[in-house]
Amino acid sequence: MARHTYLTMMTPAEARELWFSHIDALKEDMPEESVPLSAALHRVLSRPVEALRSSPAFHGAAMDGIAVKAEDTFTASSRRPLRLEIGKNAFWINTGHPLPEGCNAVIMVEHVNLEDGGKTAVIEKAAFPWQHVRKLGEDMVATEIILAPGVVIGPYELGALAAGGVTHPMVFAKPRVAVIPSGSEIVALDEAKEEDLRAGRALPEFNSLIFSAMLKEAGCEVRVYPVVPDDPSLIGASLRTAVEDGADLVILNAGSSAGSHDYTADVIASMGELLVHGVAVMPGKPTALGVVEAGGRRVPVAGTPGYPVSAIVAMEEFVLPMLARRQKTSMKRRDTLDVVPCNPIPSRPGMEELVRVKLGMVEGTFFAVPLPRGAGTVTSLSRADAVIPIARDREGIDAGETVRAELFRSREQIEGALLATGSHDNTLDLIDSMLRKKHPGFRLTSAHVGSLGGLLALGRGQCHLAGSHLLDEETGVYNRRAMREHLKGVPSLLVQLVEREQGIMVLPGNPKNVTTFEDLCREDVRFINRQRGSGTRVLLDYELKKRGLSPARIQGYRDEEYTHMNVAAAVLSGRADAGLGVRSAASALGLDFLSVGVEEYDLVIPCRYAQDERILALLDVIRSEEFRNTVAAMGGYGTVRTGEIIWEYDGK
Amino acid sequence: MARHTYLTMMTPAEARELWFSHIDALKEDMPEESVPLSAALHRVLSRPVEALRSSPAFHGAAMDGIAVKAEDTFTASSRRPLRLEIGKNAFWINTGHPLPEGCNAVIMVEHVNLEDGGKTAVIEKAAFPWQHVRKLGEDMVATEIILAPGVVIGPYELGALAAGGVTHPMVFAKPRVAVIPSGSEIVALDEAKEEDLRAGRALPEFNSLIFSAMLKEAGCEVRVYPVVPDDPSLIGASLRTAVEDGADLVILNAGSSAGSHDYTADVIASMGELLVHGVAVMPGKPTALGVVEAGGRRVPVAGTPGYPVSAIVAMEEFVLPMLARRQKTSMKRRDTLDVVPCNPIPSRPGMEELVRVKLGMVEGTFFAVPLPRGAGTVTSLSRADAVIPIARDREGIDAGETVRAELFRSREQIEGALLATGSHDNTLDLIDSMLRKKHPGFRLTSAHVGSLGGLLALGRGQCHLAGSHLLDEETGVYNRRAMREHLKGVPSLLVQLVEREQGIMVLPGNPKNVTTFEDLCREDVRFINRQRGSGTRVLLDYELKKRGLSPARIQGYRDEEYTHMNVAAAVLSGRADAGLGVRSAASALGLDFLSVGVEEYDLVIPCRYAQDERILALLDVIRSEEFRNTVAAMGGYGTVRTGEIIWEYDGK
Repeated sequence: MARHTYLTMMTPAEARELWFSHIDALKEDMPEESVPLSAALHRVLSRPVEALRSSPAFHGAAMDGIAVKAEDTFTASSRRPLRLEIGKNAFWINTGHPLPEGCNAVIMVEHVNLEDGGKTAVIEKAAFPWQHVRKLGEDMVATEIILAPGVVIGPYELGALAAGGVTHPMVFAKPRVAVIPSGSEIVALDEAKEEDLRAGRALPEFNSLIFSAMLKEAGCEVRVYPVVPDDPSLIGASLRTAVEDGADLVILNAGSSAGSHDYTADVIASMGELLVHGVAVMPGKPTALGVVEAGGRRVPVAGTPGYPVSAIVAMEEFVLPMLARRQKTSMKRRDTLDVVPCNPIPSRPGMEELVRVKLGMVEGTFFAVPLPRGAGTVTSLSRADAVIPIARDREGIDAGETVRAELFRSREQIEGALLATGSHDNTLDLIDSMLRKKHPGFRLTSAHVGSLGGLLALGRGQCHLAGSHLLDEETGVYNRRAMREHLKGVPSLLVQLVEREQGIMVLPGNPKNVTTFEDLCREDVRFINRQRGSGTRVLLDYELKKRGLSPARIQGYRDEEYTHMNVAAAVLSGRADAGLGVRSAASALGLDFLSVGVEEYDLVIPCRYAQDERILALLDVIRSEEFRNTVAAMGGYGTVRTGEIIWEYDGK
Repeated sequence: MARHTYLTMMTPAEARELWFSHIDALKEDMPEESVPLSAALHRVLSRPVEALRSSPAFHGAAMDGIAVKAEDTFTASSRRPLRLEIGKNAFWINTGHPLPEGCNAVIMVEHVNLEDGGKTAVIEKAAFPWQHVRKLGEDMVATEIILAPGVVIGPYELGALAAGGVTHPMVFAKPRVAVIPSGSEIVALDEAKEEDLRAGRALPEFNSLIFSAMLKEAGCEVRVYPVVPDDPSLIGASLRTAVEDGADLVILNAGSSAGSHDYTADVIASMGELLVHGVAVMPGKPTALGVVEAGGRRVPVAGTPGYPVSAIVAMEEFVLPMLARRQKTSMKRRDTLDVVPCNPIPSRPGMEELVRVKLGMVEGTFFAVPLPRGAGTVTSLSRADAVIPIARDREGIDAGETVRAELFRSREQIEGALLATGSHDNTLDLIDSMLRKKHPGFRLTSAHVGSLGGLLALGRGQCHLAGSHLLDEETGVYNRRAMREHLKGVPSLLVQLVEREQGIMVLPGNPKNVTTFEDLCREDVRFINRQRGSGTRVLLDYELKKRGLSPARIQGYRDEEYTHMNVAAAVLSGRADAGLGVRSAASALGLDFLSVGVEEYDLVIPCRYAQDERILALLDVIRSEEFRNTVAAMGGYGTVRTGEIIWEYDGK
C-alpha cells in the first residue's frame, strides 16, 4: 500500500505567508465592476471613492425656527427686544430646509415671540452667524475621498456613498470560487439513499454545502462541481475545467491527506506548484496549498481535508484570508474572551490545536468545557461557544489556567447561558429549547460528565447547576448523601426534575434473550457500560452487588459511553447486546426495554444562584404544563413532583 | 406655529421594554416554513431540530490500515509477532470506510509489516477494541436534539443539519418589513435632479437604502414604499396599506420629531397606541414607537428620525432588537474595547450620548478621537472605528479617563491603523488608500486638529505621527522650532511629505477682485479663516503682520473651519468671499487661486516608532513613484524631497 508523505510541516502562519507570496506575485489583479447602490451591500470597494457632491449641498436649518441675517440681530437683548418682520428679515424655516438668500442664522422657535397676529417676530437675544445652521459641506465636500479601497460596503458606507452622490461605486468583481468534491464512495447530499448511508456504501457529501455558505458570507460566487472519484486523472481534469471556466480560486475537497487514495497534492504538483502539504494544526493538518496553471491562467488552489471540522479549519485559516487579501481587505476576526478550563486540556506538542468549548459565566469567571475533539464531529462546532487555540509549543492547558478563547457567539449570549454540568438526560435539551423560546436571551448549555462529576464541578464553583441521580446504596434515597459528601459548604436546593425508568436495552425482539442482571454475565452477551461516576453505573454496581455478581464476569464492563443515547446506539449497531439506560433513549431508537425500576433525576442548584434570573426562568420552564406534557409524551418519565424543591441542603 | 410635544422621555431600555411587552402580547407568533438546506443560510430555526440519522451511521475506520477483530490480536507482542491473513482476519481499510462485519478495531498502516507478497500482515502489538474506529453515533445519535429554536443557521449549523439528515429544517418566515419614507421635499435617490439638490429644493432620500441594508443583514424581506408628503392623512393611508399588504413591522421614516410638520406620532396614535415618543438618547431622540391596527392585524410600528445618524440609532436600538425578539433569538452585540479619549468629551446630562470615534493603538493604549457629533453627518459613522456611549448621568468624559467603546471594526483592523493627528492635507487620504492596497491590514486614520495640536498630541504619546507646516516667523524655516518647543524629550524624524502652494481662494472669475492681503480688509469682502494652531492660520498672521495689517480689520477672521476643503466649500457657497488654503482644495472645487507662496508640509515621526512595520509601510508608500505621480496630478504640490528625512531632532 503506497503512502505519500507530507512536505515538511509548516505552521499555519508560515503556510499562509508562502501561499500569499505566490498569489501576490500573480500579474492579474482582481477585476473590477461598477454596481448600483441597491446591489452594493457587502461588496468591496476597489478604489478610493470621491464625493461627487457636497453634503449638505446647501446651508440648511438645523432647528425649526426663523432664519435671519445674524448681523440684523446684534442689538437684541432682554432689555431691548428686537422686532423682525416675518417675510422681510425673518423667515419661518423647518429643520433641513435651505436658508433663504441673505440669511446666515436660525433662531429656535422656542426663543421667538409673536406679535401682530404673527406678522412680527420678537427676539431677546442676538443670533451669532451660522448658529443652528448645517453648513454646506459639513458632512463632506465634493471631491473629498470619503471611502478607501478595500472597505466592505455596509449600511453606513451606503449612506456615505448616497450622501456623496456616488450611485455606482467601483467594486471588485465577486471572486469566483470553484468547489470540487472528491471521493469514490461520496454521493451528493440529495442523491444519497438512506440504506446506502446506513451501510456505509455511500457517504453523504456536505462539505460543499458548508463551504458554499462560508464563501457566500465572504462575498464570493460559488460553483460546486460534480463529485469526482479518487482518480488523479479525473481530479486533474475537473481542476482544469474549473480554471478554464474562470475560477479565481479552486477548492479540492478531500484527498488532501497522505493516504494511498489521496491524490490532491500530486495533482496540484503536476499542474503547477505544490507549496504546502501538511500544516501543524489540529484539526486541519492534511491541507494542501498551491498554484496551478491552465488555459493560460494561474490560479490558487487549496486541497482541503475530508473531515468537516478539518475542512472548516482549512477554510478559515487559509482560503478565506486569501480571498480577503485578493480584495485588499482584511477578515473580521472573532471577538476574544479570557476563560478558565474546568479540567486540564492535554495537547500534542509540535501541533497547534484548536479545541472547541462550551462556555458558562459563573460568578464573573467564564468556564470552558471542552467538546469532543474528533475532526469528524461537526456538532463540536455547532454546539461550541468558542474555540481555544493551544500553541504548538504547549503540552496543553492546566485546569484553572486563564487562556484566550475566540468566540463564536456574542459575550452577551454567553452570559445568558446556564451551565449545567453533570448527568445527562434527554429532557435537558428540551429545557434548553423551551427556555430559549419563553425567555429569549437565556439558554441552558450542558456538559455530560456524570452525576458525581457534576457535584464536584458545583463544589468548585464551575457551573450553575448539576443533574444528578446518585443512589445511596444503604438507604435507597437519591442524591442527599452524595450532596452531603461532595457539596459541604455549598447550601443547595434539590429540585426534582423527573422520575425516570431505568432498564436494560436490547435489540428489538431481544435476540439474545437477556432478561436479568445474571444474563449480563453470560459468555455470549456483550455489555456496554456507562462511565464511572455516572448514576447509571452506580445503579448497575448496586444491582450486581445485591445479587452477588462480580463485574469481572461481564464482558464489556470496561467499554464505556457517556450518554444514554450513545449506549442505545451501541446496542442498535450490534456493538453490544445490552446496556443499561433510560426508557426514553431506548424508545427513541426503537430498542426493547426491560425495566429494572424507577429512579429520581434531580437538579442540584446552589442557594446563592436561587434568585439568579436565569435560574428563575429555568424553574418557570420546568414548572410549566407544556414541559410536563412534552416529557410525559417522551415515555418512561414521571412528572408528579417535577419542579418541586424536595430538599434544602444547609451545607453542613 | 403649532408644535407637538414629546411624551415623557424614556431611556432606551425603558422604551424597548415597553414596546417589547406590547409585541410579546400579540397573539400571532411569527409564521414558520420549511426550507431546503441550500436556502437555509442565516435563517432562524423555529423549533428544536432532532437528528434523523446517526452520524456516523456506521462504525468506520478513523485511520488508514487494517481492520481486525481486537480479540484476535491479544497475543501479539514485539517478541511474539502475530501473523494475520489479509482478506480473512485482516482487511485493508481507508479512513472513513465502514468496518467489515466482525471487526472492531483498526491497526494503522505504519504498524503493519507485510510478508508473502502482501498476503500476510504482521503486527507486534495487540489492538484494543474500538481503537482507531469512529463509532456509530459518535457525532450525533438519531432522535437527539442537535439544534435549538432561535439559532441562526450558519455554516456550522448547516453541517450539523446535513450530518443529521435534516434536509428541510423548519425556520421562521422572513419578517416582512415595510419602509415608508416621508417628507414633502424628499425625492427618491435615483429621481433627484442635481440642480434641485444643490438649491435645496429637493433632498435625496437614502435612509430607506440604509434601512434596507440593515434589514437584509437581519434576514428580513424589505419593501420600500413611495415617498409620502408631510400630510397626516396620506401618511396614515400608506401605513394602512403597508399593514394590509402583510407587513410584520412598519418603519415610518422622518416626521417623528416634535415639529409642526411632524405627524408620525399622531398618525400612530390615531391608528393604535403610541407607546414611546422621544427617547433620552443622542442621536436618536425623536423616535416614536407603537402598535397599530389595520385590516384586523396588529403590527408594531417605529417612527424613525429623518437625520441619518439618528435614524440608524433608532434602527439599532429598537427595530433590530425587536425583530430578533420576534424570532426568539438575540442580536449579535458589538465587541468592546477599553479606550482613552485624547480630549475631554462633554455631554448633556439627562441624555445618553453616542459619540462616534476613530481609534488608534499607541504603545498598547487605544486612543479615541471624537468625530463630528451632528445627526446629519453620515460620515461620522462610515469613518468611525467605534462608538462610545456616555451614560445619561454623566456630564461627559475626562481626557485620560478609560471608557468602553463598542467596535465597528475588528480589534485587529484597529491595531493595523496608524493614527495621524495634526494638520490636514488631501494627500493623507491618498496615503491611506495606497497603504491599504499595498499593505493590506494597514491603514492611516487621521484627525484634523491643526499642526500645533498634532505636535501636542505627539508629545502626549496619543498618536503615531503628525502632519505639520508651522512656519517660524523669524527664520522662515518650517517645523523645526515648533518641534523644539513642543516635543522636548521626544526624539523625532522630520520627513518631508510635500511642498505645497498656499494661496487665496476666490469664486471663479474673482468677482470681488481680491488680489492682495490688503483686499481681505475691505468692507465688502467676507473672509473665512482656519482654526487657531493650524499652519495656515500661522501663515495668514505672518503675512498680515509683515504688512502691518490688523486681523481686527478682516470681516470673518473669527469664522473658522478645520480643513482646506471646508474653507473652499465656504467660498464656493458664497458664505465667504475669500479664504486661505492649498491649491489642490481650490482646484478640487473649481475655485480661482491666487498663489501666495510655497510651504513645506512634513510628517513628524517619533524615532521610537521609526521601525514600526506600519511606519515602514507608510514610508514605502510615500517613497513610491505612484504616490509622487498621483500627488503631482492633483496640482499645487512639489515632490522633490517627498519621503526624505530632512531633519533628525534629538529631543533636546
